[in-house]
Amino acid sequence: MSQLGFLHPTGLGLSGSCTRSVSSHRDGFRIRPHRTRLHATQQKTAGKDGDAITTREKDYSEWYLDVVRAGELAESSPVRGMMVIKPNGMAIWDAIRDYLDAKIKQSGARNAYFPLMIPQSFLTKEAEHVEGFATECALVTHHRLRLNPETKQMEPDPESKLEEPLIVRPTSETIIWHMFGRWIGSYRDLPLCINQWANVVRWEMRTRLFLRTAEFLWQEGHTAHESAEEAREKAIEMINVYEDLCVNQLAIPVVKGIKSPMERFAGAEETYTVEAMMQNGWALQSGTSHFLGQNFAKAFDVTFNTSVEGVTDHVWATSWGVSTRLMGALIMTHSDDSGLCCPPKVAAIQIAIVCIWKKADQKEMVLGAAKDVAARLRSRGFRVELDDRDGMRPGAKYYEWERKVSLPGYRRRATIHKQVMHIENKNICPTGCSLADGDGTTGCGKRLCVLRSENWGTQVWSSCGREF
Amino acid sequence: MSQLGFLHPTGLGLSGSCTRSVSSHRDGFRIRPHRTRLHATQQKTAGKDGDAITTREKDYSEWYLDVVRAGELAESSPVRGMMVIKPNGMAIWDAIRDYLDAKIKQSGARNAYFPLMIPQSFLTKEAEHVEGFATECALVTHHRLRLNPETKQMEPDPESKLEEPLIVRPTSETIIWHMFGRWIGSYRDLPLCINQWANVVRWEMRTRLFLRTAEFLWQEGHTAHESAEEAREKAIEMINVYEDLCVNQLAIPVVKGIKSPMERFAGAEETYTVEAMMQNGWALQSGTSHFLGQNFAKAFDVTFNTSVEGVTDHVWATSWGVSTRLMGALIMTHSDDSGLCCPPKVAAIQIAIVCIWKKADQKEMVLGAAKDVAARLRSRGFRVELDDRDGMRPGAKYYEWERKVSLPGYRRRATIHKQVMHIENKNICPTGCSLADGDGTTGCGKRLCVLRSENWGTQVWSSCGREF
Repeated sequence: MSQLGFLHPTGLGLSGSCTRSVSSHRDGFRIRPHRTRLHATQQKTAGKDGDAITTREKDYSEWYLDVVRAGELAESSPVRGMMVIKPNGMAIWDAIRDYLDAKIKQSGARNAYFPLMIPQSFLTKEAEHVEGFATECALVTHHRLRLNPETKQMEPDPESKLEEPLIVRPTSETIIWHMFGRWIGSYRDLPLCINQWANVVRWEMRTRLFLRTAEFLWQEGHTAHESAEEAREKAIEMINVYEDLCVNQLAIPVVKGIKSPMERFAGAEETYTVEAMMQNGWALQSGTSHFLGQNFAKAFDVTFNTSVEGVTDHVWATSWGVSTRLMGALIMTHSDDSGLCCPPKVAAIQIAIVCIWKKADQKEMVLGAAKDVAARLRSRGFRVELDDRDGMRPGAKYYEWERKVSLPGYRRRATIHKQVMHIENKNICPTGCSLADGDGTTGCGKRLCVLRSENWGTQVWSSCGREF
Repeated sequence: MSQLGFLHPTGLGLSGSCTRSVSSHRDGFRIRPHRTRLHATQQKTAGKDGDAITTREKDYSEWYLDVVRAGELAESSPVRGMMVIKPNGMAIWDAIRDYLDAKIKQSGARNAYFPLMIPQSFLTKEAEHVEGFATECALVTHHRLRLNPETKQMEPDPESKLEEPLIVRPTSETIIWHMFGRWIGSYRDLPLCINQWANVVRWEMRTRLFLRTAEFLWQEGHTAHESAEEAREKAIEMINVYEDLCVNQLAIPVVKGIKSPMERFAGAEETYTVEAMMQNGWALQSGTSHFLGQNFAKAFDVTFNTSVEGVTDHVWATSWGVSTRLMGALIMTHSDDSGLCCPPKVAAIQIAIVCIWKKADQKEMVLGAAKDVAARLRSRGFRVELDDRDGMRPGAKYYEWERKVSLPGYRRRATIHKQVMHIENKNICPTGCSLADGDGTTGCGKRLCVLRSENWGTQVWSSCGREF
């Protein structure tokens, strides 16, 4: 977890036993061949304005930031390197959290919460650990502000200086192992499997929304075991949980492997990783699981009475985590030059209903029908946004939603049959084209998603035959 | 939210329109008349050992800490005033969070996340706000440790001193209002309703687990509106959400009212509160909702174009929050001298199955049956713990579980009919008594919870006829 930089795939120490082939089609998700649409979108973004998205070809890094901005996922804050996660971004993280939390509980771990701040002396107990984190931590040194009588400015009150500085946690191994020392006495207390959802701080010099930020959100699991074998098995079990999350929930193909000694977590014996391949060839570390050996148990002197009378031993440990950095992998895997694409399982907004009317007397009818459709979709568990804004041109609305709500593998606009709507006003159709015919094909030959009226109330299908 | 002390009920400025009578029976939960059992439990804890629970009569504060410890809910950490929330406590908070998060989303707010640290200059923008928080904040002043070449000790690197100290958020009004200034331009952007689940830090001098800690977990809602009326309505709507949480989910009777000007949140025009009555007569603030007027909008100059052409105005605001302090109210409302009682809806462990065997050849049969029952209960959504520990006396197991798993309104031990279990070994019964008869009454006349075999698979009933 100490390695937050981009890792080129050739830099990975891949273990044959842990590596599996990456397929571009997996588990029902279709990963789009993004490049095929470059030409069309290049034309579209040719007249770049303040809201436009830089093409990937022109500047991949700028493209990424444009997608994050246009999708209203996050933005930078007035605190250097710390981001604000906006509602669209938070909804994705909450969906990831819900899924992963259930999987972690299934693995036998229970949630707990440990202090945000760690005494400086704790961090220095494990030699490699302090080397890995001492140069990038936020230090709390005072606990009160005072008004300086001369400068008339607020300043840290010198009398409130702490005897020992506190470190805002960059990771929680040290404080958790201190507590494990209190809780573990016998083999009966093992395995002890704890998970924490928390914020952590690492004073990164160069930051980038989601990918590398001074503060980020994550879960960190910490486990203690009787034997090296059991601990190593747990570390591998959890990297498999992360692989499942990436592949089956986020539709991100990953390569699973073992980090080279250089790239290991500071304090680990072995670091397992899942690495995602970005469209420009970058590999992005998306989750890691560490076999810690007895390093932290020895640093914090955590021993247990084994099941053999009179024999004690240091416990064996793992830690494992994924962070909001995974959001970066998600965005870069699926999005294109038109903006954000997000797999439906975690999309903040799965369906946007854009209401269009020409004359004032049409407004009520259109809004009524749209609200009815929205309510029916919501009752079936879809996350629906209804755009009833007045005084905005249809083109501007489409442009905005196209970049916020996009499902990989599907065209972006949905036609709703008039048979479903029972409304003759064709402007309800958010495509702006004529209504789709029975098999979901318009006159211009483009395939569209349709809500089939005959299946209404039981199934919602796309024109390519997939349920969504 | 600045008032974290115990509030005596006579100190509350109660508004007639907001106050409602408190009933000891509400919404299907039965609040026990705790005092009636004092005599019996006093006898029980007379021979106090290291694990025993102080009686409420002897020392109410000690009793509270004993209940938290014996229930394994939380414990103090090596960082002054910061607690470790243990899995049993975290499960309760997670259950509160799940319920409240859904209610907050229903109210129209969306989750977001803002930086942990706030520039010092932000806190000082609202005059009353800084007065309320400047004397109890954690200040980050450096971002790197170095090894002092002379003392050979680690210390904050003087070269890493920040130009402006950062304050670990005591509450997020200031950073959020800075961002609102970026996001709000027109009446079309309003109302803007944001919620955040986060940790906050207030450097309290005297701390007490859950009730008053230097770091605590909470949700904080922040909303912006076109008019004072709409904002005030939102503040009242959210205090009603908190009342519902307390009464219907946590079975805590509360008095709803308005804080006196002295007790208002620092920066608010009006503070609404729900106050819970503890068994010793203390009133405990359990949730607050603030009508902020235009104070923060003016401090951060957040204006909007009204729907009237050419007219701008500052927006109107609310903020509202409940914290892990609510856990203190929960514990003190329901528990007694035997230990923790927790309403079933949020109990970490709803049912404990204690396995007892005398001879080695009984072990397999008992464990097999117990695992089967546990699986069936879990599949129906119950949170079940199975105690299969070897080499521990039955009495010690009962004693431990009695203090960890307790449902108010019900006796603590459950008898499972042998008809259900299909096992003749009566030691499976965790009461240690003879098996309960058909109507759930034992020979000693005590009413017990029973899982009725005739209803197995469809309903689980207590002996008093209530489903749980």
